[in-house]
Amino acid sequence: MTETFPEREFTAEQIDAGRRAYELDRAHVFHSWSAQEPLDPMTVLDAEGSWIWDGEGNRLLDLTSQLIYTNAGHQHPKIVQAVKDQAEALCTVAPQHVNDARSEAARLITELLPADINHVFFTGGGADANEHAVRMARLHTGRRKVFSAYRSYHGGSQLAVNITGDPRRIPNDDDAGVVHFLPAYHYRSYFGPQDESWSEKEEGERALQHLRDMVVLEGPGQVAAIILEAIPGTAGIYLPPEGYMQGIRELCDEFGIVLIMDEVMAGFGRSGMWFAHQHFDVEPDIVTFAKGVNSGYVPMGGVAMDDAIYGTFAQQVYPGGLTYSGHPLAAAAAVAGINAMKDEQMVENALRLGAEVVAPRLEEIKDKHPSVGDVRGVGLFWAVELVRDQTTREPLAPYGQTAPVMNQMVAEAKRRGVLPFMNMNRFHICPPLSVTAEELEFGLDVLDEVLTLADESVADG
Amino acid sequence: MTETFPEREFTAEQIDAGRRAYELDRAHVFHSWSAQEPLDPMTVLDAEGSWIWDGEGNRLLDLTSQLIYTNAGHQHPKIVQAVKDQAEALCTVAPQHVNDARSEAARLITELLPADINHVFFTGGGADANEHAVRMARLHTGRRKVFSAYRSYHGGSQLAVNITGDPRRIPNDDDAGVVHFLPAYHYRSYFGPQDESWSEKEEGERALQHLRDMVVLEGPGQVAAIILEAIPGTAGIYLPPEGYMQGIRELCDEFGIVLIMDEVMAGFGRSGMWFAHQHFDVEPDIVTFAKGVNSGYVPMGGVAMDDAIYGTFAQQVYPGGLTYSGHPLAAAAAVAGINAMKDEQMVENALRLGAEVVAPRLEEIKDKHPSVGDVRGVGLFWAVELVRDQTTREPLAPYGQTAPVMNQMVAEAKRRGVLPFMNMNRFHICPPLSVTAEELEFGLDVLDEVLTLADESVADG
Ligand SMILES: Cc1ncc(COP(=O)(O)O)c(C=O)c1O
Ligand SMILES: Cc1ncc(COP(=O)(O)O)c(C=O)c1O
Repeated sequence: MTETFPEREFTAEQIDAGRRAYELDRAHVFHSWSAQEPLDPMTVLDAEGSWIWDGEGNRLLDLTSQLIYTNAGHQHPKIVQAVKDQAEALCTVAPQHVNDARSEAARLITELLPADINHVFFTGGGADANEHAVRMARLHTGRRKVFSAYRSYHGGSQLAVNITGDPRRIPNDDDAGVVHFLPAYHYRSYFGPQDESWSEKEEGERALQHLRDMVVLEGPGQVAAIILEAIPGTAGIYLPPEGYMQGIRELCDEFGIVLIMDEVMAGFGRSGMWFAHQHFDVEPDIVTFAKGVNSGYVPMGGVAMDDAIYGTFAQQVYPGGLTYSGHPLAAAAAVAGINAMKDEQMVENALRLGAEVVAPRLEEIKDKHPSVGDVRGVGLFWAVELVRDQTTREPLAPYGQTAPVMNQMVAEAKRRGVLPFMNMNRFHICPPLSVTAEELEFGLDVLDEVLTLADESVADG
Repeated sequence: MTETFPEREFTAEQIDAGRRAYELDRAHVFHSWSAQEPLDPMTVLDAEGSWIWDGEGNRLLDLTSQLIYTNAGHQHPKIVQAVKDQAEALCTVAPQHVNDARSEAARLITELLPADINHVFFTGGGADANEHAVRMARLHTGRRKVFSAYRSYHGGSQLAVNITGDPRRIPNDDDAGVVHFLPAYHYRSYFGPQDESWSEKEEGERALQHLRDMVVLEGPGQVAAIILEAIPGTAGIYLPPEGYMQGIRELCDEFGIVLIMDEVMAGFGRSGMWFAHQHFDVEPDIVTFAKGVNSGYVPMGGVAMDDAIYGTFAQQVYPGGLTYSGHPLAAAAAVAGINAMKDEQMVENALRLGAEVVAPRLEEIKDKHPSVGDVRGVGLFWAVELVRDQTTREPLAPYGQTAPVMNQMVAEAKRRGVLPFMNMNRFHICPPLSVTAEELEFGLDVLDEVLTLADESVADG
C-alpha cells in the first residue's frame, strides 16, 4: 500500500545542510511558547502534499498540517506557481495603494461569506485579526467589554492572548477589558455531571444560560463583542451543542453585541465547510481568518466585516493599520489557494473523508483502547481525548501540562512515519484537506498502534 | 537626463485590469488608518528599482519606499529569485521545526548587531515585534511600566499603539502600563525656546534630565523598559542630540531597565548604517526590526535580544508565539536582501548620497523657500518640515492633521513624476537605498519646484 506514497532521496550534502540548519537554529533562533534550552526541534528538509521529510530524510505523514494551516497540502503546484508569478511580477505594494492580487483575494473571500459581509481588512496573522476585530466592535458599539470563552485560543499578542482562554494567558494577564465565560464542552461539562446522564442538549442550554447570566450581570450595555471560535481548535476541537450558536446569535441581537467568529483555524475548509459557522446556520457580524486562507504559504490574516461595521468607518477614521496589510504575495497565494481548493473540491473531500474514514475508525479506536475517552470532530478536524479512566474521565495529562507517555507516543508515531498533533491529553487529526483515504488510513493505523502505549500507562496508573 | 530612467509600456488590457483592481478595492478592501469612503487610492501596476508605475502607466520616483521599507529597491532580481527558489523548494514550515532559511536569516541578522545579541524571535511585522520585546522585558525584570516617547510610532496592535506616542494612540487609549515622556526634538523643543538661542546640547541635556525625573518619580524599580526609535521615523526623522542616547543607556544601566531600540524603520541601512543606534555608539538590550530586513518582499519582523534576556527564557517558558514566526519564504527574502545590500554596498551608498547629494541640496532648498522651516536627516532618511513662518516655526499643518496645500503638493509632485512621503507638515525623503544620484537629483528638483506652492500659501496666510 505504501508504494503509492511519495519518495525522496537526499544526498549527504542535503542531510549535512539540515544539520547545519539545526545548529544555527539552536544558536540563533528563539522559539514560540518555549523554554529555549531544552528544545530539540525536528528539522524539515522537504514537503509535498500530505507529507514532510525530517532531518534524517524520514518521510512523515503530516497530521498536523504544521500548525493546522497547510489546508491545500504542502507545495501545491498551483499555489507555488502563483507565489512565483507574483514575486516575478510585483512582490510588494504598500497597503494604501491598489493591488490586483489583494483586490481579487478580498472579492473571493467575501464571496464565501454571508451576503452582508463585503469588506476585508487584511492583517499579518490570526492574532492581529482578532485584535482589530475587537477594536472595530468597540468603536462600532461605543462599549469596551469583550466576552470570550475559557478553553479557547485567539493569538499571542497582548490583547489577543488576553482574549485567549487557555493557560498561556495567565503569565500575560492584563486589564484588557475581557470577561471569560465557561464554554459548552459536553465531554468535560462545567454545568452537569461528566457522564452519560448529561445530554448534549442540556449542556447547550445550560451553557447558554450561563453566558446570558454573565452578560446580564456584567451589564449588556457594556458589552461590545462576544468572540469565539466557531469550533474551538487548539483547545480541543469540541463542537458546540445544537442550538448553542443560534442562542449566542440571539443573545447578541437582543443586546446589540457584535458577534465575532474566529475562523482562524476552523475556517477555509478545515471542518468540511468553507467556514465552520456554516455548520450551525448562524451569521456572524465579523469573521476573522488566517492559516487556511492561503495555506500559510505566505503570512496573512484578516477581518471580514459586515456592512454595519463597515458603515461605522465609512466616514470616521478607523484607528488601526499595519505595513503589510494586504501584501500582494500573500494575496496571490490566497487567490490561488481558494481556487485550487474549489477546483479540486478539497472542502467536500474533507467533509466526506471525515464522515466515511475518520469517524468510523475513531469510533473503533475508542471502543478498543481503554485510554481513549472521547473522539469527536467533523471534516478533517478531529480530537482524540486520552484519559486515565473512561468512567471518571480523568485526563491522561493534567490541564495545561503534558505527560511522558504523550511524548512517547509522538516519538513512536514518528518512528512509524506519522507526525501527530499533540496538546495536553489530546491528539488532533488535522491533515491537509487534499489528503487521500489511503493516507488517512495509514495515519489512523499508526495512531491505533501507538495508543497501546497509553493503554499500558492507564493499566499501570 | 531622464533617458536613463526605466521605461514601461502598458497594454490597454493591463490598464483595464488596473481599473478592475481599483473597483474591487473600493468594493471589498478595508484600508488602514482611514475613513473608507473618501479614499481614492492610487493603483500600482508595476515597480522596479526606485520606480513605480501608477494605474495610468505613469512612472513615479518612489521617495516613500512604499512605507519606508523597500530598502533594497523594487523587484531586486536576487531577492525575487530567492523568493521564487524558496517557494519552489519549501514555502512553509511551522515555527517549532527547523528550517534552513530561518536559521541563516537569524545568523545574518545577529551578525550585524552587538556581540552579545545572539538570538532572534521572528514575528509577523513591527507591531508584534515591539509587543514581544516589551513582554520579554517585563518578564525579565519582573516589572510592568514601560517608558515610551511622545512623537513616536511603534505599531497598530493594541499594546503597540498604546506604546506609540502619536495621535493614533488616542482613540485606542488603554491601561497598558505605558508612561510617555517628552522626546528630545530640538527644532520643536519642549524644554527651551524654539529659536536659535536654544542649542542642541541644551536640548539633549534637558530632555535627558526630564526622562530621568520621570523615571525617578514613577519609581525606577517599577520600570521594565524604555523603548524608543533609534531615530524617530514617521514622527519626523528628528535625530537625537549628541549624548542623549548614551545618557539613556546610562539611565537604564543605573536602574536595571531594559533598553529596547525600535529599528523597524531606521534599521537595515536606512540611516546609512546597518542600524541607526550605531550612529550613537550605544548598545541596546533588545532591537526590534521589520521592513528593511527583507525590504518587505514577504511580511516579517523580529526581536533580537541579548544573552541576558535570552537567559531568562533558557529554562523558563516564554509565553508568546505566533503561527508564522520565522516563515521560510520571508526568511529567504531576508537572507537574499541582506546579502544583496552587502554585495552592492547599499548602506554605504545611502550614507554617501545622504551626505553628498541630499544634505547640500536640502540646505539650498531651505535657504530658498520661506515655507521650509527645518531640514534634517542622515543616510536616506530625511525630513523637510514646512512652516507658516520661519521665525515662529508655526507648522504648515497642525499637529495630527494635514493641510490642503500639502495634498496639492503631493498631487503636483506626482504629476511631475515623483511620489513623495507626506506626514502632517512634513515631507520625508526615503527612496530605496539602491537609488542613484541622478534619480535623487530628479526627485529633489521636483520637490524644490512644488515647494513654491507652500511658499505661496505662506505668503497668503
Ligand atoms: C483560533 C485561532 N485564533 C487565532 C490564532 C492566532 O493566529 P496567529 O498564530 O497567526 O497569530 C490561532 C493560532 O493557532 C488560532 O488557532
Ligand atoms: C518605528 C516603527 N515601529 C513599528 C512599526 C510597526 O510596524 P508594522 O506596521 O509592520 O506593524 C512601524 C511602522 O511604520 C515603525 O515605523
